[in-house]
Amino acid sequence: MKSAGGRLLTGLELDRAADRPLHQQLHEQLKGQILGGALPSGTRLPSTRTLVSELGVSRITIVTAFEQLTAEGFLRSRAGDGTYVDSLWSDRAPARPLPRPPLSERGAATSARGTSLFTDAPHSWAPSETESFVASQVAASAFPAAAWKRLLGRHAGRTDQSLIGYGDPHGLRALREAISEYVNDVRGLDCTPDQVVVTSGAQQAFNVLSVLLLDAGDTVLVEDPGHISGRLAFQSQGCPLHGVPVDDDGAVPPAVDDGARLACLTPARQHPLGVAMSPVRRAEWIAWAQRNGGWIVEDDCDSELRYRGKHLPTLFGLDPSRHVIMVGSFSKVLSPSIRLGYCILPEDLVEPFATASSVIGRPPAVLFQAAMADFLAEGQMHAHLRRSRKLYAARQEALLEALGQQLPYRLHAAPVDSGLHVMGWLHGAEDDVEVARGLAARGVYTYPLGEYRVTRRLPSALLIGFAGTAAEHMPQAVGRMAAAWDAWERSSARR
Amino acid sequence: MKSAGGRLLTGLELDRAADRPLHQQLHEQLKGQILGGALPSGTRLPSTRTLVSELGVSRITIVTAFEQLTAEGFLRSRAGDGTYVDSLWSDRAPARPLPRPPLSERGAATSARGTSLFTDAPHSWAPSETESFVASQVAASAFPAAAWKRLLGRHAGRTDQSLIGYGDPHGLRALREAISEYVNDVRGLDCTPDQVVVTSGAQQAFNVLSVLLLDAGDTVLVEDPGHISGRLAFQSQGCPLHGVPVDDDGAVPPAVDDGARLACLTPARQHPLGVAMSPVRRAEWIAWAQRNGGWIVEDDCDSELRYRGKHLPTLFGLDPSRHVIMVGSFSKVLSPSIRLGYCILPEDLVEPFATASSVIGRPPAVLFQAAMADFLAEGQMHAHLRRSRKLYAARQEALLEALGQQLPYRLHAAPVDSGLHVMGWLHGAEDDVEVARGLAARGVYTYPLGEYRVTRRLPSALLIGFAGTAAEHMPQAVGRMAAAWDAWERSSARR
Ligand SMILES: Cc1ncc(COP(=O)(O)O)c(C=O)c1O
Ligand SMILES: Cc1ncc(COP(=O)(O)O)c(C=O)c1O
Repeated sequence: MKSAGGRLLTGLELDRAADRPLHQQLHEQLKGQILGGALPSGTRLPSTRTLVSELGVSRITIVTAFEQLTAEGFLRSRAGDGTYVDSLWSDRAPARPLPRPPLSERGAATSARGTSLFTDAPHSWAPSETESFVASQVAASAFPAAAWKRLLGRHAGRTDQSLIGYGDPHGLRALREAISEYVNDVRGLDCTPDQVVVTSGAQQAFNVLSVLLLDAGDTVLVEDPGHISGRLAFQSQGCPLHGVPVDDDGAVPPAVDDGARLACLTPARQHPLGVAMSPVRRAEWIAWAQRNGGWIVEDDCDSELRYRGKHLPTLFGLDPSRHVIMVGSFSKVLSPSIRLGYCILPEDLVEPFATASSVIGRPPAVLFQAAMADFLAEGQMHAHLRRSRKLYAARQEALLEALGQQLPYRLHAAPVDSGLHVMGWLHGAEDDVEVARGLAARGVYTYPLGEYRVTRRLPSALLIGFAGTAAEHMPQAVGRMAAAWDAWERSSARR
Repeated sequence: MKSAGGRLLTGLELDRAADRPLHQQLHEQLKGQILGGALPSGTRLPSTRTLVSELGVSRITIVTAFEQLTAEGFLRSRAGDGTYVDSLWSDRAPARPLPRPPLSERGAATSARGTSLFTDAPHSWAPSETESFVASQVAASAFPAAAWKRLLGRHAGRTDQSLIGYGDPHGLRALREAISEYVNDVRGLDCTPDQVVVTSGAQQAFNVLSVLLLDAGDTVLVEDPGHISGRLAFQSQGCPLHGVPVDDDGAVPPAVDDGARLACLTPARQHPLGVAMSPVRRAEWIAWAQRNGGWIVEDDCDSELRYRGKHLPTLFGLDPSRHVIMVGSFSKVLSPSIRLGYCILPEDLVEPFATASSVIGRPPAVLFQAAMADFLAEGQMHAHLRRSRKLYAARQEALLEALGQQLPYRLHAAPVDSGLHVMGWLHGAEDDVEVARGLAARGVYTYPLGEYRVTRRLPSALLIGFAGTAAEHMPQAVGRMAAAWDAWERSSARR
């Protein structure tokens, strides 16, 4: 019978100054030695008396740790014969443990980008408060915090089951009603509250739709260039992507049927290029769906932020054959941090979508749904939209002016009718991803168009967001961009 | 050239009493006729003058509608020759439109259950406030609404970018720190804040883990019987499920390697049967992962609600080889409607998980994360847990007493050490799903064990939740259950 006195005692390091009680430290360390193989099964432990004197701790410390280890199956006492390491762990540990499996194929593809740069998410939490060129960033200072706080406060004290429980998988009834009125007002879209399902943002809706409509291997048509994270959602579900080009009329449907089962489109305002899809194209896409028996997901995520011109009707409203599902979001018209969006669905898809949605992520936080229902019903959203359109139009103008004055030799940017960013087309032949990285390394955050491509070669450009910088800060902010660009150019010339 | 006077005019129904302006009604209806094929392309419309007199509306109504339809590509005017239906739509509509595609295979499987009965979700929003036997329902009246409202109020007025933007894909730093302390306190789990990623509930975590670790077709081991919606999450990702039996020591690992890549387990408290996994089994499962190179997802969702006895160490803490990922949730210890949970991950999985998580659903609502961080840091959670354990222990006792007095001839229920429900084992040979349906039709909601099975035949039983009914209401509530059961039995005997 092996005895473990020496090995055990030399391995132990009890720290009297630490927060954790000594018996916990002893427990943790003995467990670690057993699991790690340093104390093999069958090892006899020194007696309590020995340990007390060697470790200089009280008897109760030793006994407490031993009792817990015994309850956990690590130690076994034999009456009158001391305490042994149980064979529980060592007997079962395989002789040659296999390493952990790698990530799945789709998992590796989905996570390859990392959270650090060039995804929507990190950009919008990293940059500063007063200036940012990140395209997905709204004006935080313009967030209607007082109204929102008041509405949250109205519901936050409630303890009724409807507010504390999981919530209706379709979303709160009052919010579904408010959304059906809202999309009618802002998008001329005619639907009943029963066709609305509330989601925790558009991103979640894309995932639920992938699961519901696509099996792994089914091809998805996406715009090339197109919205990054929308595309990643389909890809993460094991669906190969097929890019369709975008021209001045919007996304171009494939001339021949290529077996794709779903097309994800941004007709209101192509993301990122900004063109509105022409009526002819709308007709062609609906014909595509009808001809091939395909689905269209209409990503309508920031169409409400329109500064000039009228909306064309949604694909959803144009297709009597019900091949279209519309996805909307409050991320850009209010704030992405409240995680609320919605799907407008053909009647027969509502129940399957709501079921799949609660399997994939449950309905969104009920309190926010209740506050949002009031925010819409009280007309707060319309007021906020009016203010935002004015604010963002002024910020866009200030951005274009500053770019024209300070960076005309670098890029050309034209005004956009809607959305939160302009395209800055580079005059030079630099790789836009390199430029964006160079600027980011100097604290100036933009998105490079190159990140939006699927397979198509694109001219170099940056997406430059205007919503996150006050008009009066714009000249300095663009000045900092110009300086960062110069510095990057110098440092890359030197290499 | 076809003229459409008669057809167009008979088809139109303008409602002067309606809310929507007449020009909108006219626009909608003409668009419908064109899209529906009632007004084929090339059709010449009656003159404005004719329409004014026939419809009895103003010229401006007609002109406004026509202008919009022209902008949308539905109509075309020829100078001096009137207005025609454009060929835009009809030219593109396929001669034989294909119907919409069916749901995907996994979509059909995921949504087959529907939102109406026997999923966690609808049960917890449907039932009444004062009594419910739904196993996933917490005591709404015990929700610490005042503290929660105060903490939300503290952050709700903020308009800084970190609160208004998408938020850190890993979760709010303060919350990650608070969670790493919390799991140490309540679960003895040793991890750094960097190993914590905040999710919008456990359900979302299961989905992200499926995408990250599994490709479609990879087999997942689940407990049989096992948690319904956890299992559905893996299935919705196209992964075949393989049930492993559960005995008095917990889930039984497969004797031979069956190629499964991941096992989802509830060691702290098997859901639904309630047994804690024995030390031997814990060792065997870790050996399974090491021998086959498999992942273990440790679903630890309500382990904090323990009324008696000590926790055994988590699989996560027992496995030095890092094959285990732990998933926790605030759904049962606080409320499911706040949608907050977390994953504790091996260091090298943190970044991939956070990336995949933001692709699949983005980080959860930031305001709730901020409030939860304070709720934990202020010790509110510990106070709430103490109160909840006491409250639920009393409710469990009241339930068992009432069942023993009023339903001893129907079922037998034993006390449980943790969780929110007891198992009521039926004496009779009735199908538990039928019983649960019969009771639900009479307003008494339980879950039938049959719904938790994967493939194994199980004795009939109901999961009877005790958290949703006050102790003093319990006798009446169980009385209503008894009455509903009698009524169901009579009505099914009659059939
Ligand atoms: C075109 C487009 N689609 C989808 C999204 C995603 O929105 P959400 O924050 O609701 O997931 C956005 C917002 O950034 C967007 O601009
Ligand atoms: C065992 C188990 N797993 C997972 C969940 C899902 O929790 P969440 O509400 O965080 O998605 C629950 C809660 O019902 C549960 O009991």
